[in-house]
Amino acid sequence: MEYVSGVKKKDDVNINEILDKELYNQPIKIKGIVHTIRDMSEFSFIVIRKSQGVIQTVLNKEVFDVKEIHEGTTLELTGTAKPEDRAPNGFEVTIEKVNILSQPAAQMPIPVGKWKMKTSLETKLALRPVSLRNIRERAVFKIQEGVVKGFRDFLYNEGFTEIRTPKIVAGNAEGGANVFKLDYFGKKAFLAQSPQFYKQMLVPVYERVFEVAPVFRAEKHNTTRHLNEYTSMDFEMGFIEGFEDIMDMETGVIQYIMNLLKTDYAKELKILGLELPNVDNIPKVRFDKAKELVAQKYNRTIRNPYDLEPEEEILIGEYFKEESGCDFVFVTHYPSKKRPFYAMDDPEDTKFTLSFDLLYKGMEITTGGQRVHDYQKQVEKMIARGMNPEEFEDYLNAHKHGMPPHGGLGIGLERFTMKLLGEINVRETTMFPRDLSRLEP
Amino acid sequence: MEYVSGVKKKDDVNINEILDKELYNQPIKIKGIVHTIRDMSEFSFIVIRKSQGVIQTVLNKEVFDVKEIHEGTTLELTGTAKPEDRAPNGFEVTIEKVNILSQPAAQMPIPVGKWKMKTSLETKLALRPVSLRNIRERAVFKIQEGVVKGFRDFLYNEGFTEIRTPKIVAGNAEGGANVFKLDYFGKKAFLAQSPQFYKQMLVPVYERVFEVAPVFRAEKHNTTRHLNEYTSMDFEMGFIEGFEDIMDMETGVIQYIMNLLKTDYAKELKILGLELPNVDNIPKVRFDKAKELVAQKYNRTIRNPYDLEPEEEILIGEYFKEESGCDFVFVTHYPSKKRPFYAMDDPEDTKFTLSFDLLYKGMEITTGGQRVHDYQKQVEKMIARGMNPEEFEDYLNAHKHGMPPHGGLGIGLERFTMKLLGEINVRETTMFPRDLSRLEP
Repeated sequence: MEYVSGVKKKDDVNINEILDKELYNQPIKIKGIVHTIRDMSEFSFIVIRKSQGVIQTVLNKEVFDVKEIHEGTTLELTGTAKPEDRAPNGFEVTIEKVNILSQPAAQMPIPVGKWKMKTSLETKLALRPVSLRNIRERAVFKIQEGVVKGFRDFLYNEGFTEIRTPKIVAGNAEGGANVFKLDYFGKKAFLAQSPQFYKQMLVPVYERVFEVAPVFRAEKHNTTRHLNEYTSMDFEMGFIEGFEDIMDMETGVIQYIMNLLKTDYAKELKILGLELPNVDNIPKVRFDKAKELVAQKYNRTIRNPYDLEPEEEILIGEYFKEESGCDFVFVTHYPSKKRPFYAMDDPEDTKFTLSFDLLYKGMEITTGGQRVHDYQKQVEKMIARGMNPEEFEDYLNAHKHGMPPHGGLGIGLERFTMKLLGEINVRETTMFPRDLSRLEP
Repeated sequence: MEYVSGVKKKDDVNINEILDKELYNQPIKIKGIVHTIRDMSEFSFIVIRKSQGVIQTVLNKEVFDVKEIHEGTTLELTGTAKPEDRAPNGFEVTIEKVNILSQPAAQMPIPVGKWKMKTSLETKLALRPVSLRNIRERAVFKIQEGVVKGFRDFLYNEGFTEIRTPKIVAGNAEGGANVFKLDYFGKKAFLAQSPQFYKQMLVPVYERVFEVAPVFRAEKHNTTRHLNEYTSMDFEMGFIEGFEDIMDMETGVIQYIMNLLKTDYAKELKILGLELPNVDNIPKVRFDKAKELVAQKYNRTIRNPYDLEPEEEILIGEYFKEESGCDFVFVTHYPSKKRPFYAMDDPEDTKFTLSFDLLYKGMEITTGGQRVHDYQKQVEKMIARGMNPEEFEDYLNAHKHGMPPHGGLGIGLERFTMKLLGEINVRETTMFPRDLSRLEP
């Protein structure tokens, strides 16, 4: 009988292994994709793209005919590395043998081998399977990986449980018209706008829960900050003393993410020329106070007392950047009118809620707050809003059978990454964006 | 200006802290949910449910009136712990002060405080926000968390990049009728049946990628093994020598998961009385050979030479359990006819593919294999199957511009957990299952 026993040692090497073990002046095997070719007639510089970066190699024309090698050729080569200050990662490989693994069928439609492609966003998105091969493009999504990893690892350390909640749902937490509808075996169903109901239901089970998963919003506006499908990093925690506990936790999450990026994603930070923000202390301000402050300072009239206009968010961001040096600001106590039915009103003034948004460089990246945990109060609030509690029976079962004081938040991953990278369009930090006109690739 | 500076030290404790620091004979604060109450007239045993387990407490009637405490009451209590062999985790807390945080509005509809609820699956699922509070029920999904964690951690260590691919798509990799349709701003869209296309596209970008995310199948059969939404643990790896590399990697993943469960989820394994399978060596067998073996041994006629009937899968599982002692078996070289267009045919006999299923206790939990990487060959295979390559332009862009030899797999998380736990219905290991008749909670 034949058996499979686990991962076997590979005989090819990647960049870190070459550097760590100083594999110089001895034959090594490398597998990779041809990133760029510079033909110098007697020899060629062939840059090989690996997951860990690029390797500069030198191919003499006696060894292999460079005409058989193209951008996008995948190959296995044997060669000898030696230190070379001018090459990426400080070494260069002289090729001794080439084995072609596969050939592209056409020339690159965009210059993925260039440091900056100077290609329009439209083209980059239309050609994602190709454009992501650019070193800077792919670094963007490594940073994004780090953000998710940091979110998860920190919350695990804080005693959270990871959950998986359904995306096809019968009702939606956020309400409104921006819901994708679906025929579910003859029944009406929707795509989940958030895991709100489910994460709350699981608080009496695990006390603290989190999920990183897609959410869907059928919003009809085509802006630089909206997506119709995005990744929401959600958590919900029980036994809070107040909604401040949630802001404390989010600050901890962000501090941890920045530290993780600094240590584990230094290569990508360097590629993107990124400086990480200081997040030791994030200022906080009440919603009404924030409105006043920017109205005064920037000489504006307050038009809508219940919500922040995008321009106001930008000015609040600017104000606190100037006053505190911080790119982030928590805006607290949003008006009850503009918050969902599950938000807890401030007992000191029920026109406001025990909730917050986190602005990052003047843009909302998080909405969070304390939730109503008492069954009667939740039912009353629903009725006062003209909702029918019977339609929310499953959700209210959690309240009915005992819910601790709790609250939580959702962070938009693509927006967070966009602001971290200083991009002005959220599509730059979305691998395969879904918007009004974009359903492919 | 006021600032938020991160997570503050809490003044209440959880079980591990009490045990680790031996916080005995001194006042401690505990927040939790009342799991069970046993009134002994002069005093009561009140078991408090925490995320880390349960705590037995003793409440004397002079301290607080037990009539105000119900199953589902959430409270904060101050008390003194002392070692007590007969109590869970070896300690008991005498309550000195009770602070009620919230009250349930109704009696528990099912006995969540019991060790085994003896409640039908139907009832458990209908009352998920309540039934998951049972200690054994919630342990099931901690084990599931561990499976995902193990999958991810192992692949990170093996140099994989975590990706996030869209769930609203224009076309589907697996084809067929079992696709959920969606109106996307007047365009026809679908819910993704798998991340197949996207993970392949990302192989030339990162070499090795993985994703853990929901997938959607509109299958119309109501069985104990099918779900209409489930979690797929997918990976795809480039520069493979053969499809055996993928089986090696999966074996490594499973070995790592079992080790992680043993170390980090020992509590839950004990609660569920679970013994982990030995996965040092997993047998493998060719598809046609497996069919012959069970036909011979169990005296069956081979009816369908192109696919395995569920009963055949069970018998193959039994056969290899008997012969090798292993609960798992890789079945390789599935007929080309029954595999998708992206599967690579075996050059030695193109009626078969370089692919495999992994059976666990007689049920398919993984489908994987090597993919076609050459552009021309992929186009030809599509045409031979009556497909129009132009409809797959985005996907084929990856092949067109250079794809290394590659392959991958998808593991059904809920099925894997079901088999690991010895359950016979996949709904037992799905928090909020979606099936023909179930869209709520």
